[in-house]
Amino acid sequence: MSAPALYSPDLARDMIRKGEWLKPTSGVSNGFIQANLAVIPKELAFDFLLFCQRNPKPCPIIDVTEPGSGIPELAAPTGNIKTDIPKYRIYRHGEFVEEKTDVTDVWDDNMVGFLIGCSFTFEDALLTNGVPIRHIEENCNVPMYQTNIPCVKAGAFEGPMVVSMRPMSEKDAIRAVQVTSRFPSVHGAPIHIGNPRAIGIKNIHQPEFGDPVTIKDGEVPVFWACGVTPQAVAMNVKPEIMITHAPGHMFITDLKNEHFAII
Amino acid sequence: MSAPALYSPDLARDMIRKGEWLKPTSGVSNGFIQANLAVIPKELAFDFLLFCQRNPKPCPIIDVTEPGSGIPELAAPTGNIKTDIPKYRIYRHGEFVEEKTDVTDVWDDNMVGFLIGCSFTFEDALLTNGVPIRHIEENCNVPMYQTNIPCVKAGAFEGPMVVSMRPMSEKDAIRAVQVTSRFPSVHGAPIHIGNPRAIGIKNIHQPEFGDPVTIKDGEVPVFWACGVTPQAVAMNVKPEIMITHAPGHMFITDLKNEHFAII
Repeated sequence: MSAPALYSPDLARDMIRKGEWLKPTSGVSNGFIQANLAVIPKELAFDFLLFCQRNPKPCPIIDVTEPGSGIPELAAPTGNIKTDIPKYRIYRHGEFVEEKTDVTDVWDDNMVGFLIGCSFTFEDALLTNGVPIRHIEENCNVPMYQTNIPCVKAGAFEGPMVVSMRPMSEKDAIRAVQVTSRFPSVHGAPIHIGNPRAIGIKNIHQPEFGDPVTIKDGEVPVFWACGVTPQAVAMNVKPEIMITHAPGHMFITDLKNEHFAII
Repeated sequence: MSAPALYSPDLARDMIRKGEWLKPTSGVSNGFIQANLAVIPKELAFDFLLFCQRNPKPCPIIDVTEPGSGIPELAAPTGNIKTDIPKYRIYRHGEFVEEKTDVTDVWDDNMVGFLIGCSFTFEDALLTNGVPIRHIEENCNVPMYQTNIPCVKAGAFEGPMVVSMRPMSEKDAIRAVQVTSRFPSVHGAPIHIGNPRAIGIKNIHQPEFGDPVTIKDGEVPVFWACGVTPQAVAMNVKPEIMITHAPGHMFITDLKNEHFAII
């Protein structure tokens, strides 16, 4: 069997569905968009969709399922968000309840699934352009921080933007702006370069989510809007039930990264 | 008083609200985004928002009002979509009923307003780049055509894409792709260049909407997804009530065209 990087998305999802792949999906089906998942009750879906529409940098929508359906018709018509993610998390009234490898038994006809872009896409583009990525070098999770940048409210959904950070040389930071600007539908250009305090981050060495990474002399921190934002904001609303992917265990779509490049 | 092109959006909306400007808004508050309007009942709003999300080229959303509110908080916090458009059209069950200059008396708490990007933004960028626009030269409406390109369905909303057409030299067509690619949130790059039959247009000289324009020897027709699409699609659903702007009578926002350029 070929390397996971070469699996077709369909094969990768099939293996995940059968329980043959239970690990994080980083490096699987290279070149294809992977997505964050947030499933919420239909009653909240309009406000949540509006929230994402109003905050496209942290909440870039890749696909939304019809109420009750697990099939993302646009992103992966042969896939199913109830079964094709290696590890899910279930939250009730905003509290974490359990992890599962299949959510068919907690699914009901009232649920709407949101697939939201993740940074894998633009990281791939950065690497292709010779911009090194520290957390990949250090084999850990990207550091993520809560900022003082308010998202635009929609209905009950509101809260601060969460950002991810990648340190790099100033020369690379300029190239990173160019490279990631090509992908407005998957977080796009950085939202901040430089002084962390300017966006309310007190200690760059203590991320709220993920792991700290080394920042070398002469490097600047470069911040991107992060797909954790919509999950964090939805959690605040304490929906009766909410299903997400477990960190790093993403939904693999049929859409090519390059399909999302605007130029 | 200064020229209409120099009116601030706030002043322009104020004049419209007071009935002091009842004409089309082309050329007013130059450099600011103008938007199409579609107001529909809340029950349909999620599916319509999803339709727009799934079809961003014909349906680029600029702002959506909270149910019942006339205020587009993002696009024009001092504006009101019930009063600040010079001419509205009211449709009941998909049938045109009347034109009004203010829709406060038909408004109810169940209504959601969608402001959708229009081609004025990228036409401005084309002109700045020296690409001539035929329907402006000939002082008529842009020609628009129904195509055989299906939009992606969402709930009850489905139908073919409507496109606008601008004929130009092949050299200008290449520049037009570059220039309009900068504006993915207001229709973006063309969806087709060349043979009209390839997208189901039988007679380029007989547009379904707007006016025919001259196509000179050596020119190619260049087609963009058109903001008439979501209105046409919504009309098919025959909502109990639907309010739109009258053609050419747009909502003027506080957002600068350049704000929507991705690079």
